[in-house]
Amino acid sequence: MATLSLDEARDLASKALEAQGFSNEQAQAIARTIAKAERDGCESHGLFRVPFYVKALAHPQTNAKARPVLSELSSSIVRVDGARGFCPLALETGLPALEEKAKANGIAALVINNSYNIAALWPEVEELAVRGLVAMAFTCANAYVAPAGGTKPLYGTNPMAFAWPRRGKPPLVFDQASSSSARGEIQLHARDGKPIPEGWAIDAEGNPTTDPEAALLGAQLTFGGYKGAAIALMVELLAGALIGDLFSYQSTERDKFGSGAPFGGEFIIAINPATTASAGSCEDIVATDSNTHAEQLFERLLSQEGTRLPGSRRVAVREQTAANGTTIPDSLYETITGYLQG
Amino acid sequence: MATLSLDEARDLASKALEAQGFSNEQAQAIARTIAKAERDGCESHGLFRVPFYVKALAHPQTNAKARPVLSELSSSIVRVDGARGFCPLALETGLPALEEKAKANGIAALVINNSYNIAALWPEVEELAVRGLVAMAFTCANAYVAPAGGTKPLYGTNPMAFAWPRRGKPPLVFDQASSSSARGEIQLHARDGKPIPEGWAIDAEGNPTTDPEAALLGAQLTFGGYKGAAIALMVELLAGALIGDLFSYQSTERDKFGSGAPFGGEFIIAINPATTASAGSCEDIVATDSNTHAEQLFERLLSQEGTRLPGSRRVAVREQTAANGTTIPDSLYETITGYLQG
Repeated sequence: MATLSLDEARDLASKALEAQGFSNEQAQAIARTIAKAERDGCESHGLFRVPFYVKALAHPQTNAKARPVLSELSSSIVRVDGARGFCPLALETGLPALEEKAKANGIAALVINNSYNIAALWPEVEELAVRGLVAMAFTCANAYVAPAGGTKPLYGTNPMAFAWPRRGKPPLVFDQASSSSARGEIQLHARDGKPIPEGWAIDAEGNPTTDPEAALLGAQLTFGGYKGAAIALMVELLAGALIGDLFSYQSTERDKFGSGAPFGGEFIIAINPATTASAGSCEDIVATDSNTHAEQLFERLLSQEGTRLPGSRRVAVREQTAANGTTIPDSLYETITGYLQG
Repeated sequence: MATLSLDEARDLASKALEAQGFSNEQAQAIARTIAKAERDGCESHGLFRVPFYVKALAHPQTNAKARPVLSELSSSIVRVDGARGFCPLALETGLPALEEKAKANGIAALVINNSYNIAALWPEVEELAVRGLVAMAFTCANAYVAPAGGTKPLYGTNPMAFAWPRRGKPPLVFDQASSSSARGEIQLHARDGKPIPEGWAIDAEGNPTTDPEAALLGAQLTFGGYKGAAIALMVELLAGALIGDLFSYQSTERDKFGSGAPFGGEFIIAINPATTASAGSCEDIVATDSNTHAEQLFERLLSQEGTRLPGSRRVAVREQTAANGTTIPDSLYETITGYLQG
């Protein structure tokens, strides 16, 4: 295992991507996102992802030097054209404008188009919540997941992320796929020759399977049956048709070059609780500000044994990685340092 | 069984409520909502609910003659103070203003405070989608549902509803509890003396149960385990702290008079796809308008045998009830006609 400080992890990712053809701006934005994942112990979105970004260049239309373009679609909607580059720089371009509009108008949205989204969604909703906003984010992916009642892949793993600001503490954040499991977990089971749990997937004939290889050739299933499938469909619509961008199946069909990277849009809503909670209930049992009020709920929740707040595991890991850095397999370290040769 | 036309069902509900002390305005708005549920075969939100509305008057602060007050919290946020009345009239007061703001600004939200919400959420999101908007709605309820890892009620059944407009067709709509089942479903099982499926609830000691009476005394479970619980928590925050209104457990604590009715807020987001999709992807595989684009996804979905669109059952029932009316148990019919005596 190789041990790196978080700064070293970020710089390694950035230099490797730049050596492979990414512009300095694109590489640095991606590397900052990767370093956040390493910081939070979110291995599958950390340095592990560097080869995925490099592989995305396989599509001839991918623009590793893309300069995202910010525009305004209305008084409460900002848009970033990712210009066929990658989502981290598009987000850095759009989030300050989204924050400004949400604070001015009470609610606003950010539309990101034409972008490869290989990262998680929690960094952007957390960023908005650090700035005092409530945030939700949605994106499609490639088609891996069967609809309710169906047997063939149609939806992506279609995450929905949510963040709530907390005074003096990291925001409460969740970021969850509409599928029962991440695709990477099935791949890990396949690598290790272990069966997957029931309910994760069906084989190519539509039969339930615990064989990870059969699952990868078949379709993943949504969490919670038809209710998770309704959420998967909602995410397709919000991150696809609502913003004029690709559905998961269209991202898959576009990827004739085996880049493996989901291409399309992301939709983010930001709400200012200082506006929405300003009138409030006439009941005197409601706290005077949204922050204090929410903490009362969290206290109630945590008073039940066996519970925890979503995202608390990531926050706990932060203290460790800040002190001790992060470790990655030697093979991954060698792959990434190999990229430095260009 | 008693058979009524939809107009008769609406008028019966309205007259019964007015005889019990509701203002004509409140009674008619509630009755319109009840008639929509009967129209769509949504029994648990139809005439079945009339006694719930009457029982809500048990709380001395309930205002059966409330006049909701519309105001503006910011350029994109409208608010309706339900004045301790019931949600249907608050919604009728706020939805036109929400529509106007969403169409002007691209995205807008409606905050409803101080209101009893005994109805489903699909009527309001469907109403917005009929007007061309994409809509999401959230509300808390009383504390009936255990958090992930816990055994005691904390969350409400906390529905999230979503609607997508379709040209020349009823909107695609879903409205799903974050609990495994609606509480009304358990109540119907209890009424009919039928066991509930496993996974719906735990008893007061925290043990899994299929006894609907034990379930009503214990706690319901979220759908899809911790992922459904994250959604339940999000709904508490959006319909509670974000809008300065009661959490589910606060609604329960407030209800010292056994009214049984959830009291608090509702949060609705409306988005104008004509704005958000106006720039769109540079890829020529994306249809030029969001409506056409979405229909491509629905076609793909329905091309898989065994699938259906969310809400399609309700839409199918409409044609039958329009022709044949709706039937309710004699006992319910007698209860409601009994209310007419005042």
